[in-house]
Amino acid sequence: MSDNHSEEDNPAGNGLLNRRQWLSFSTVGAASAVVSPVWASKSKQTEPWRSGSGRGPSAYGDQPALASLRREQISVHPLGPQAGASSTPLQLLNGTITPNALHFERHHSGIPEIDPGRHKLTIHGLVRQSLAFDYESLLRYPTVSNVLFLECSGNSYRNTLTTVLDETAGGLNGLVSCAEWTGIPLHYLLDEAGLDPTAKWVIAEGADAAGMNRSIPLSLATSDAMLALYQNGEPLRRSQGFPMRLLVPGCEGNLSIKWLRSLKVMDQPAHTREETSKYTDLQLDGKAWQFSLRMQVKSIITAPSGQMQLPEKGVFEISGLAWSGNGSIREVEVSADGGQSWAKAAIQSDIGEHKPVRFRIPWRWDGQPAVLQSRAVDSGGNLQPSRSQALQNVAPGFSYHFNGIQSWQVGIDGRVSNVYA
Amino acid sequence: MSDNHSEEDNPAGNGLLNRRQWLSFSTVGAASAVVSPVWASKSKQTEPWRSGSGRGPSAYGDQPALASLRREQISVHPLGPQAGASSTPLQLLNGTITPNALHFERHHSGIPEIDPGRHKLTIHGLVRQSLAFDYESLLRYPTVSNVLFLECSGNSYRNTLTTVLDETAGGLNGLVSCAEWTGIPLHYLLDEAGLDPTAKWVIAEGADAAGMNRSIPLSLATSDAMLALYQNGEPLRRSQGFPMRLLVPGCEGNLSIKWLRSLKVMDQPAHTREETSKYTDLQLDGKAWQFSLRMQVKSIITAPSGQMQLPEKGVFEISGLAWSGNGSIREVEVSADGGQSWAKAAIQSDIGEHKPVRFRIPWRWDGQPAVLQSRAVDSGGNLQPSRSQALQNVAPGFSYHFNGIQSWQVGIDGRVSNVYA
Repeated sequence: MSDNHSEEDNPAGNGLLNRRQWLSFSTVGAASAVVSPVWASKSKQTEPWRSGSGRGPSAYGDQPALASLRREQISVHPLGPQAGASSTPLQLLNGTITPNALHFERHHSGIPEIDPGRHKLTIHGLVRQSLAFDYESLLRYPTVSNVLFLECSGNSYRNTLTTVLDETAGGLNGLVSCAEWTGIPLHYLLDEAGLDPTAKWVIAEGADAAGMNRSIPLSLATSDAMLALYQNGEPLRRSQGFPMRLLVPGCEGNLSIKWLRSLKVMDQPAHTREETSKYTDLQLDGKAWQFSLRMQVKSIITAPSGQMQLPEKGVFEISGLAWSGNGSIREVEVSADGGQSWAKAAIQSDIGEHKPVRFRIPWRWDGQPAVLQSRAVDSGGNLQPSRSQALQNVAPGFSYHFNGIQSWQVGIDGRVSNVYA
Repeated sequence: MSDNHSEEDNPAGNGLLNRRQWLSFSTVGAASAVVSPVWASKSKQTEPWRSGSGRGPSAYGDQPALASLRREQISVHPLGPQAGASSTPLQLLNGTITPNALHFERHHSGIPEIDPGRHKLTIHGLVRQSLAFDYESLLRYPTVSNVLFLECSGNSYRNTLTTVLDETAGGLNGLVSCAEWTGIPLHYLLDEAGLDPTAKWVIAEGADAAGMNRSIPLSLATSDAMLALYQNGEPLRRSQGFPMRLLVPGCEGNLSIKWLRSLKVMDQPAHTREETSKYTDLQLDGKAWQFSLRMQVKSIITAPSGQMQLPEKGVFEISGLAWSGNGSIREVEVSADGGQSWAKAAIQSDIGEHKPVRFRIPWRWDGQPAVLQSRAVDSGGNLQPSRSQALQNVAPGFSYHFNGIQSWQVGIDGRVSNVYA
C-alpha cells in the first residue's frame, strides 16, 4: 500500500479528515439554529400528518417511501424476457445488506414459476447412489447462514468501454448485491449420494427454460458452497431461484445456478455453451481464460457518486462497499485528489471470507474540482488495480471480471460524474 | 449452566445429536434414491415451467413465492388504526435478518405519510444551542451500521396468560425482529447542540398524531443509540419511521421512537403517559417498575414450532433465535426432554452486543412425545428463566418483559404445539 497516508492530522490531501477532526468541526454545521426552541406538542397544526391517524399495520410490507428506490438498468431481450438484468441502486443504500427487492437480477430465460411440490433436485453421475431431493425434505437438513456478496462477472463492464458514461454508481456497478444467505452445506448432500474417487467436477443445471448450467470444480462445490433456501431470512424470491439455488461464495454470479434441479458429478468439466462462448476472458494475445471463476478484490464509492449534487461546500461522509472473492477485506483507502494521496477508511462492519464491508471516511469539500477514488486490499494481499492496470492485457470490447478503480469527479458546481482517471 | 450435557456422543437425551453423529446418519435419509439417473436436459417436458421463458427483471422486487409468508397477529383498533401491531412469522424464516416487509409493527396512531422535505428534527432543552436538522442535511453526517434485534416490551405476553394458546412461534413471540440498522450516532447530534452539565434525560417524540414519546436516560442516548436512516440497506419504510427514527439498542422497542421530530434534553424524565400508565411492570406487591428499559436474555425455537407437522420420525434440525439487551449471547442450550437434559447448540452467526444469533442442533425424533426447549445465557452471565421463574413476582394479567422459556410439545402424531412446561 501507499506510504503517503497516516493516522495523524490530514490523513491525505484535498480534505480527507480523521475522526477527531470530524468531531472538532462540530460537525457538519448543516443544521440550522433554532432561535426560539419550540416544545414539540405545541406546533401540531403545522404538519398535516400529525392531525390524524395514519393507516395501520399490514401483512406484507409497504412500498418504499422514496419512489426513486428502484432497480436500474433494467434490460429485457427484444424478443422476450430470455436475457434480462437489473442492477442494485448502490447510491441510495447504506450499510452492507441489499434488501431482496433490490438485489440485482440476471436471467437467461426469465423467471420460471416453479411449483415447489413438483420440483426435485437430482444428484447423479459419479456417485454411489443417485438421489432426488424434494423441497419439503430439504427443509429438514442442517443449515448455515453467511453474509456474502454476489457479483455478476459482467459487473462494471461499462467502465471498460472507451466512452465515459455519465451514470449512477448503481447503473455502472450495480450488478453486485449483498445478502445473508442461508442454506445446506452442499457437501452434506454430495456425501449422502457418495462421491466416486474419480469425481472432479460438478455440473449444475437450473430448471429455467434455458437450462442454465455451469461446471464447478469439486473443490469449490465441497468447501463453502451451499444449497441456498433463504435470502435475508425469508424463503428465496422467485427472481432469486425459488425454491432453491446454488450459492458458490466469492465466485462469479453465474456459478450460483438459480432454480437448481440437477447436480451431475463428473471427472471433467462439461464445457457448456455458457463457459465456452460466454463467461471467458479474451486476452490481447487472442487466447481466452476459461474457468476464471473468482471475483477479484474491488471497491466502489457509493456516496458521493455519479449524478449526485453536493449542495454546498463543507463536510460530507465518503462511503462505499468493498469485497473480494479471494478472502476477506483487509483495508480500504480513499483518495480525494485522484490518487496522489490516500487515507485509510474506517471499516465498521464485520470482516469475513467473501463478506462485503462498508467503508467510510469524512471529507471536507473546499468547492474546488476533486476526484474521489477508493482501493481495497484483501486478506491475500491483492490490491485493487487502477482502471488502466485492470485493462492492460484484456482484448478491447466486452470485458468480464473488471475490478479497476472507480473514479468520481466533483465539479465546481458540486455535480458528481463518472471519470476515467 | 447445567452439568448434564457434553460434547460427546448423545449430548443430551431424547435424540439430540452432535455434528459427527449427524453426518454418520448419512444423513436425513429423506432423499429418495433414483434407480435410473436421468440426465437433466432430457426430461424437459415434465415440468411446465421449463417449456418457455418466464417474466423478466423488475424495478422493485417481486412478491414472496410462498403466499403464507405474511406478518401475523395483525391487530387494528376498532375505531381506526391508532393502535395496531403485526408480528414477524418467525417459523417461516431462517438466518438472523428479518426482511423489512416482515419486520414487526406496533403503532400508536397509525403510519404517518411524512414529506421528508418538510420534516425537521429539533434538539432543544438543556443545550447550548437549539438546532433543527432536515433530512437532506442529515444524509451528510457520519454513519454506523449494526445488526440488532428490536423487541416490543409486550412480546410473548400471550404466554403469560393462564390459557395455553395453540399458536405459531411468530404468533406468540413475533414482536421481535432483526435488521442491519444504519444511522448517525446520536451523540454526534447532541454534541453539536452542546449538552448542559445538568442534562440527565432526553425526551424523544415522534411526528405521528399520537406524538408517541419516551424519556431516555442520557447514558443510553449518548452510548450506542443512533438516529436510524436505513434498515437492511434501504431508506426506512414509512412503517418503520421514515424519514428517521431513534434506535436504542437492547432496549424495549417503544424507546426507539419512530418518525422522530424532537429531542428535548432535561434534568429529569417527563413521566409521559406511555411510561406511567403503560410500559411499567406491576409487581405482586402492588408496586410497579418504571423505566425497566432493557430487554432480558431470551431464545425461541422457531423450528420445529407451534402448528408445524413433522411428516415422520427421523432427523430434523432444531433451530431458533437468541438475543439479549444486556450484552451478547454466550451460549444457547437445547433440551428435547422438557428440561431434564440440555445440549449446547451451535451458534454460527456473528456474536456481538445486542446482536441476534441463530442457534442450531440436529435432533432425531423417535416418534414418541417430546418437549423441545431452548435457554440462552448472555455475556453478563444471565440465564434465561423458566416460564414459572419469569412470572414469579409479576402481578397476574398483561405482563411486559416476559422472557420465560418457550416449550413446544411434539405429539405422537408429529403435531407441534405450545405447552407450559
